[in-house]
Amino acid sequence: MTGRPTLAVVGATGAVGTVLLTILSQRADIWGEIRLIASPRSAGRKLAVRGEEVEVVALTEDAFDGVDVALFDVPAEVAERWAPVAAARGAVVVDNSAAFRTDADVPLVVPEVNPHAARRRPRGIVSSPHCTTLSMIVALGALHAEFGLRELVVSSYQAVSGAGRAGVETLRRQLSLVAGTELGTGPGDVRRAVGDDTGPFPEPVALNVVPWAGTLCDDGWSSEEMALRDESRKVLGLPRLPVAVTCVRVPVVTAHSLTVHARFEDEVTVDRAREILATAPGVVLYDDPAAGEFPTPADVVGTDPAWVGRVRRALDDPTALELFVCGDNLRKGAALNTAQIAELVAAEASFTAP
Amino acid sequence: MTGRPTLAVVGATGAVGTVLLTILSQRADIWGEIRLIASPRSAGRKLAVRGEEVEVVALTEDAFDGVDVALFDVPAEVAERWAPVAAARGAVVVDNSAAFRTDADVPLVVPEVNPHAARRRPRGIVSSPHCTTLSMIVALGALHAEFGLRELVVSSYQAVSGAGRAGVETLRRQLSLVAGTELGTGPGDVRRAVGDDTGPFPEPVALNVVPWAGTLCDDGWSSEEMALRDESRKVLGLPRLPVAVTCVRVPVVTAHSLTVHARFEDEVTVDRAREILATAPGVVLYDDPAAGEFPTPADVVGTDPAWVGRVRRALDDPTALELFVCGDNLRKGAALNTAQIAELVAAEASFTAP
Repeated sequence: MTGRPTLAVVGATGAVGTVLLTILSQRADIWGEIRLIASPRSAGRKLAVRGEEVEVVALTEDAFDGVDVALFDVPAEVAERWAPVAAARGAVVVDNSAAFRTDADVPLVVPEVNPHAARRRPRGIVSSPHCTTLSMIVALGALHAEFGLRELVVSSYQAVSGAGRAGVETLRRQLSLVAGTELGTGPGDVRRAVGDDTGPFPEPVALNVVPWAGTLCDDGWSSEEMALRDESRKVLGLPRLPVAVTCVRVPVVTAHSLTVHARFEDEVTVDRAREILATAPGVVLYDDPAAGEFPTPADVVGTDPAWVGRVRRALDDPTALELFVCGDNLRKGAALNTAQIAELVAAEASFTAP
Repeated sequence: MTGRPTLAVVGATGAVGTVLLTILSQRADIWGEIRLIASPRSAGRKLAVRGEEVEVVALTEDAFDGVDVALFDVPAEVAERWAPVAAARGAVVVDNSAAFRTDADVPLVVPEVNPHAARRRPRGIVSSPHCTTLSMIVALGALHAEFGLRELVVSSYQAVSGAGRAGVETLRRQLSLVAGTELGTGPGDVRRAVGDDTGPFPEPVALNVVPWAGTLCDDGWSSEEMALRDESRKVLGLPRLPVAVTCVRVPVVTAHSLTVHARFEDEVTVDRAREILATAPGVVLYDDPAAGEFPTPADVVGTDPAWVGRVRRALDDPTALELFVCGDNLRKGAALNTAQIAELVAAEASFTAP
């Protein structure tokens, strides 16, 4: 490649694609052409990126001609079909779907944690983790590098935008029906008020929390719980790390939160943990309960870092830390991480040579 | 005592007191007089219990004359002053505040778990646990009896009514301000919309989750986290049980939820755990994800049992179970448990003798 690399955004009109165009407009501009690709019915639409209107082209084989890096923000079945097509045309694919996350020949990359992994990509594809994993893994990666992680017990408080635009619309519709009422005090009264259309969720999410995310796997586990376990292991390079997790949806629009009980090889101190978190790239330590400071989704939405608060050492185990972590599931949890991976790939010597 | 015992309800006009009068009207009627006691400014009001109007009397020493069992649903500082007064007049006090929960001479009782403990009460006072502890402890007590508990890691999803009427009013007011808007997508937009009055919470609770409940203790722990640890140990009779917990407030009106990672002495099976939970008194097993069945607060609010779902064995530890537990924090979490303790005390031979 000579000159600046060409970036393609596949799925440019979707929820994550929209955030990605904003992020690409805000970050240091290393790209030559940015090509916007979407389904044929979106072709011809014009979207703003880097302050310019760019016309969306239809997803075809030829759309990848001359593309150096292709970011895929599309459903897994679309990625499964089209990522190999883009790779065969010479593009490095950065995929944000679940299609390749567990593929041994596809690295799963978080640039702050395992940037080196992006260099070995026999299929020409690099995968980005699920938003729930991403909301906590940057902070955990920093602590693991110092203390050596031995076990994780995690509970999530996942925002509805993790289920896409339909999730947001469902919460907003339900909130309009329950606000100003006395609902939430009798069995099933919320369900009767919001009706049978619970959108992408199995239960009403307004005035409620729903202990389910994803599809049913073996032994009662949900797919998002399995993903958080498998992806944490892969990103951290700890294939046998014990990970226990329960995923729960909460009535928050955007920004996932997680409680984390992390056990390490040796004794930990809160002071050292705080030093690590305060200086780790991509992490903001916001932790002063006496001053009312701890992250909440409403405060961190729209920002890039993983916010960490409530840092405590377990009272009964000097090797374990308790954390509360918040991150924007559409930014670092999706669009931002793929943009960072694309920049990492573009910065490789083989790419930047004239 | 001859005939039916006299029950006093102290704090009859409060949030928990109101639920208690409903519960007393629904349960088997073992009481003679039910005397309603409240602050002097509420004296003279009439409240319905067992289908009759009863006039509230003011809290004085004489108000306890002839009382056999006195249920206290008042702030801790009121209980601290008045519970010993009632006990000195010969009443057995059942206190629902934090005033005596850690007192070695005051038993902390959950009738399904440690009914025997209520018999040793040197101060004439029996204490009822905090609502968050109560929402999970009945299920855990049943599993502990079979498997022997060794460690708990817990995260809470606590309803706003755990912070009293002010908590409910705060959520309702905030919901009216955010419903029908596009809020929840930019940093701090919810906070600006709801204003500085966040009621009993340190942050907005609508479209948000807040990782804080109670007051600040040593080393960054909150008082409700310490309470859940201390009370679980006391009720289960396991004074050195390792308990790691993070308490989080969610925008739910009533019914607390908790994720529980429970490690036991020996290997556990999901089948046996389900058998235990399906037959344990005070527990409902509601756990069939394939049929969309797991408890949520909106479904269980207004009911008495602890609802348990998402029962899984930890994938990496055959001695650990994962659970999602929901319970009404005003019923079993407060009023119901005190009513059950009162019934337990009244059923003692020394009480029921003619």
